[in-house]
Amino acid sequence: MTRTTASFGLACSDLRPGKTNGITDVPGVLVGHCTLRSGDINTGVTAILPHGGNLFRRKVVAASHVINGFGKTVGLVQVDELGTIETPILLTNTLSVAACSAALIREALARNPDIGRTTSTVNTVVGECNDGPLNDIQAMAVTEDHALSALAAAHGGPVEQGSIGAGTGMTCFGFKGGIGSASRRLEIAGQDFHLGALVLTNFGRAGDLILPDGRRPFPAGAEAGAESPEKGSVIVILATDVPLDHRQLARVARRGGAGLARLGSFWGHGSGDISIAFSTANPVDHGEEQDIVSRRVLSESRIDLLFQATAESTQEAVLNSLLAADRFLGRGGAMRLSLADCLAKGSETLPQNQFGQHSEKQ
Amino acid sequence: MTRTTASFGLACSDLRPGKTNGITDVPGVLVGHCTLRSGDINTGVTAILPHGGNLFRRKVVAASHVINGFGKTVGLVQVDELGTIETPILLTNTLSVAACSAALIREALARNPDIGRTTSTVNTVVGECNDGPLNDIQAMAVTEDHALSALAAAHGGPVEQGSIGAGTGMTCFGFKGGIGSASRRLEIAGQDFHLGALVLTNFGRAGDLILPDGRRPFPAGAEAGAESPEKGSVIVILATDVPLDHRQLARVARRGGAGLARLGSFWGHGSGDISIAFSTANPVDHGEEQDIVSRRVLSESRIDLLFQATAESTQEAVLNSLLAADRFLGRGGAMRLSLADCLAKGSETLPQNQFGQHSEKQ
Amino acid sequence: MTRTTASFGLACSDLRPGKTNGITDVPGVLVGHCTLRSGDINTGVTAILPHGGNLFRRKVVAASHVINGFGKTVGLVQVDELGTIETPILLTNTLSVAACSAALIREALARNPDIGRTTSTVNTVVGECNDGPLNDIQAMAVTEDHALSALAAAHGGPVEQGSIGAGTGMTCFGFKGGIGSASRRLEIAGQDFHLGALVLTNFGRAGDLILPDGRRPFPAGAEAGAESPEKGSVIVILATDVPLDHRQLARVARRGGAGLARLGSFWGHGSGDISIAFSTANPVDHGEEQDIVSRRVLSESRIDLLFQATAESTQEAVLNSLLAADRFLGRGGAMRLSLADCLAKGSETLPQNQFGQHSEKQ
Amino acid sequence: MTRTTASFGLACSDLRPGKTNGITDVPGVLVGHCTLRSGDINTGVTAILPHGGNLFRRKVVAASHVINGFGKTVGLVQVDELGTIETPILLTNTLSVAACSAALIREALARNPDIGRTTSTVNTVVGECNDGPLNDIQAMAVTEDHALSALAAAHGGPVEQGSIGAGTGMTCFGFKGGIGSASRRLEIAGQDFHLGALVLTNFGRAGDLILPDGRRPFPAGAEAGAESPEKGSVIVILATDVPLDHRQLARVARRGGAGLARLGSFWGHGSGDISIAFSTANPVDHGEEQDIVSRRVLSESRIDLLFQATAESTQEAVLNSLLAADRFLGRGGAMRLSLADCLAKGSETLPQNQFGQHSEKQ
Repeated sequence: MTRTTASFGLACSDLRPGKTNGITDVPGVLVGHCTLRSGDINTGVTAILPHGGNLFRRKVVAASHVINGFGKTVGLVQVDELGTIETPILLTNTLSVAACSAALIREALARNPDIGRTTSTVNTVVGECNDGPLNDIQAMAVTEDHALSALAAAHGGPVEQGSIGAGTGMTCFGFKGGIGSASRRLEIAGQDFHLGALVLTNFGRAGDLILPDGRRPFPAGAEAGAESPEKGSVIVILATDVPLDHRQLARVARRGGAGLARLGSFWGHGSGDISIAFSTANPVDHGEEQDIVSRRVLSESRIDLLFQATAESTQEAVLNSLLAADRFLGRGGAMRLSLADCLAKGSETLPQNQFGQHSEKQ
Repeated sequence: MTRTTASFGLACSDLRPGKTNGITDVPGVLVGHCTLRSGDINTGVTAILPHGGNLFRRKVVAASHVINGFGKTVGLVQVDELGTIETPILLTNTLSVAACSAALIREALARNPDIGRTTSTVNTVVGECNDGPLNDIQAMAVTEDHALSALAAAHGGPVEQGSIGAGTGMTCFGFKGGIGSASRRLEIAGQDFHLGALVLTNFGRAGDLILPDGRRPFPAGAEAGAESPEKGSVIVILATDVPLDHRQLARVARRGGAGLARLGSFWGHGSGDISIAFSTANPVDHGEEQDIVSRRVLSESRIDLLFQATAESTQEAVLNSLLAADRFLGRGGAMRLSLADCLAKGSETLPQNQFGQHSEKQ
Repeated sequence: MTRTTASFGLACSDLRPGKTNGITDVPGVLVGHCTLRSGDINTGVTAILPHGGNLFRRKVVAASHVINGFGKTVGLVQVDELGTIETPILLTNTLSVAACSAALIREALARNPDIGRTTSTVNTVVGECNDGPLNDIQAMAVTEDHALSALAAAHGGPVEQGSIGAGTGMTCFGFKGGIGSASRRLEIAGQDFHLGALVLTNFGRAGDLILPDGRRPFPAGAEAGAESPEKGSVIVILATDVPLDHRQLARVARRGGAGLARLGSFWGHGSGDISIAFSTANPVDHGEEQDIVSRRVLSESRIDLLFQATAESTQEAVLNSLLAADRFLGRGGAMRLSLADCLAKGSETLPQNQFGQHSEKQ
Repeated sequence: MTRTTASFGLACSDLRPGKTNGITDVPGVLVGHCTLRSGDINTGVTAILPHGGNLFRRKVVAASHVINGFGKTVGLVQVDELGTIETPILLTNTLSVAACSAALIREALARNPDIGRTTSTVNTVVGECNDGPLNDIQAMAVTEDHALSALAAAHGGPVEQGSIGAGTGMTCFGFKGGIGSASRRLEIAGQDFHLGALVLTNFGRAGDLILPDGRRPFPAGAEAGAESPEKGSVIVILATDVPLDHRQLARVARRGGAGLARLGSFWGHGSGDISIAFSTANPVDHGEEQDIVSRRVLSESRIDLLFQATAESTQEAVLNSLLAADRFLGRGGAMRLSLADCLAKGSETLPQNQFGQHSEKQ
């Protein structure tokens, strides 16, 4: 069974989670993984599908936010101009973005033969983190076929988490990171809605993690933060079925950063911290024939509920990624401890509120 | 003596504070207050001077970041285009921004008679929060003279904190808020530098505050968060003598939001959360005669130290504003408890990690 | 009768203008002026009202774009966060922004006694240009009463243009500038819509103006561009009754810059070039009681029509401001020629496509 | 001999061009092409190298501006966060971005074996336009080898223009577009500097082009603008040896849009109009060992010269791309006329200032 914040008494929540506490609690959203583990290759692809249909024909309203831009995510220029996403979102390692993007193009061409002929081209969205410390990233092992496998594997229901898909070789706060997810159930206008987060966690220096109860677990043997500058990244994908327009989704996307900061992150210089949010309400037809269309949108004064759900889900999704991941042996024998093991042992946490690693020097 | 995080064992710090743990630890930076307390009038002005000279003639490199833009701060358009600040920064209540801006203009005209004649006009920077719940804000009681008083009162050394100056009528997480400050000492290139934060705190819902040790103090008698939507604001002023250019200062300004998030804030919809950062290194001459000038800048790979200092200082400055403020009786008898009293009593904190205010309803 | 591009064979148009070729062709939009001319005082206030009702209660959807940010416009932070405007828009000289902002606050308080008491505060929008060369701007002659006069004078029908209201003391491409307006009629979904522009023109170096027919009129006696750096500004207000959301209005606002560039402007360093766009469709209720509301929005693929109308209207509105203005004697005897006079004489235009002012030096 | 604006009396210039009137007038900048013409394949790659050395080790200061974001350019997130470019810039067709990005990664890995091992990963910059109307873009014919060929072909001296490299299959204002370049010589601080533009032109509706003399040439047989919505794109690369920092380069990049607007473009909805600017002064060492470094920067008050040079160079580079391109027969027999032929015949221009294509309908 998957270990989660709930099993460790660490739920960071004032709002109730959805049924599976994952991004797939948002109706229609699908997640699939393709995992590569072989020798020094420890990497993969994770696919998030806003819906199972033809996304180029029925786009979803979307927005992004760059928390810290030391990253190579593709597709954001058009997402922020037009306010839509028109392909699945793929996550992978930094040097495999091109392969994933090419796979999304070929898949879109196969389903929409008019692309680049009688209609416009297609904008792909691919996020990434650098798994170089645990994966032979120079091998560029991810192929277009791996990307297609992740797409084909997409399904609803519980999200597999930890060292899987794009999360296979990731490191977070010095522990083994990977894929995590969480969701919140929202009651609006007498109806049930959801907001869900899926994160690819590869950020944070050892010793910087702060648990909801104030503890600061430290991975034994890791270099402390100040000696080991942040070179990771984190991608936060946020989905909701609440009807939000692009501006509102941009506001929601920004709150992904709040969830990360609650964990002790200061969005380090070397980290590509990107947040992408979409709503499954109000799909946009590629060939809309009407000049003027009707849309439903949340009344702005209710949006705090979404902001709170985003901060909580993002924070908890990161913890879930850490708790779900087992101890991991990567490229060249590099080892990452599991936060779950560390917490089970109940040791190895730093005292709170101390003057830290810099104290001896100053 | 001022109560601070140190006196309550709540220092949120891996880095060492500067001598006074205030923004004035950055050499040359001055802070002054003008406080209005009379009947239902509980408001004021706080001035931050990047240096004591003629700021129009010797501007400081600066940048801003809008964490959440439900606010009325003036001057940011030009700060972000030109990357400089050319007046003192004033903080006040929302409806007194115009008076403070007019005062800054008149003061600049008095010192620089060529403004609007033979040289350009002057760009004022004024930040604000809404102190309406404790102050008769409709009275627009702050005059240009009050603004000039705050400027005249500016000095180095320890920063007066709590219910003073612009902070007089502010509320934060349901407790009495106000002015807070903190600083960090940074060793770079074998030299001592500082980064300091000064905050005007008027944000956060009752019950949302998370202390560094995970406790969640609740102001007895306040409405819980979900029933009382966030309508506050917070202004974060960041000063440093590390030589940073505009882009780097924009990166630093963004980390003010991380400091707020660590306290449990999700940057609520109704809150104008604005961060402004400046460096006292590399002043920019208004009448620069050279076509090409030399500047020193921090090597980008060292910037994490600044980011961490910003997150820590902002978080601690907010706590200092709360701890320094006494119980307060405001407009129409509205009362705000002191966080210091609450912690001293050691009661009234919420259990951690519970499903909160929404639980009964769902 | 007002001189316009039409009377000089300079209409820059593929689309047809509205009935009055002014921003008030957008149903409900009102414009008023208050003009100060006395000795060295040559300044004023211009008011644009998106509608004649209580704007705080029924806000309009809006967005802004900073073409070049050497300017002091207030209110944009909130406009871009929330996507709405909740007061009239006032235009004035640079040092009178505070007075106009205070007037808008007092007017909003008078009509909405709950502001700052039981509801949020109010965000004012005031744009400005520096009329210092023709006006004793240091006198700060504009008072709150002048601002209220401009509001009270607002009416529909033809817009008074040239040296009036905020345009009284403005200079544009070395000629007398001021207020200009233009509009385009748009047929969408079988219905008539309009987009209108109102500009406050105080930008452009002498000799840089390019007419739609390629001529480059030069104001005799003025210093050529390179010797007289751009220190002006221009505010572009765009109104439409086409239902556009915030993102779409931001795209429209950006095209104001295209209209300026067609005239030869390169958005000079010293110029505060700001564009603000609003739609009168889909007003937003301050006290919206529904959690989820319905809106109409233009289908994105039709938006080129709005972009073209914006570029044309802005370009033509600037020319109208120049053509409507008479020869003007300002502060200290400073004189500005009228473009209309210059064109009537048919002389004084530069040859096209020459190597210009720099040629002798190089 | 290459046809340029000079040979047609269309130089749009107050400033003097550099020696070759191309981007390579900026010392050190190299340009190379790889052209694919075979059957329905009419596409290619163009490489711009800020310098001929190892760009990952010696990055150049850079910034970008999104004029209109309906585009798929990769790399901008990191360029705008860190203010540097660390690979050559490649231009290609929309669906070949991934191949070009992968080629840049492999080349960077070959020269810097520490990437993704002991140092960070590499951020590639690839711009694109959609050449689908003249090229079988679905074939994704561009391979990594083609990208490497363009890099290997890079040289200084005159830039080959017209239907070459990435410009092979492009269309602009209904005429044959492609690659164009222009430059301006700048005298600053008694020294010679340059600013150069290279454009990939695939934007503008037939009939919208405005020549510097006001003429509006129309490609016989093309559909008029309103019937044929803009679906193109344009990439503007700006290089200079003037020492500018990131903020200043962002200001310069923005002025690329002014150059386009002068030609009659309103930055159409369907067009990905992207501007990227870099300075060859102040290269940034990847492994900078000093904590604080010295830089030279242009004094801000001199920046208008750069803005004017950018607007002029961009406008002229677009015209050069049109004039250099011959009549072209593309995919499935689609034909594009040459602007040069059209101007030589001296016919086929629209009358000025008419109510255009819409007039019959309205």
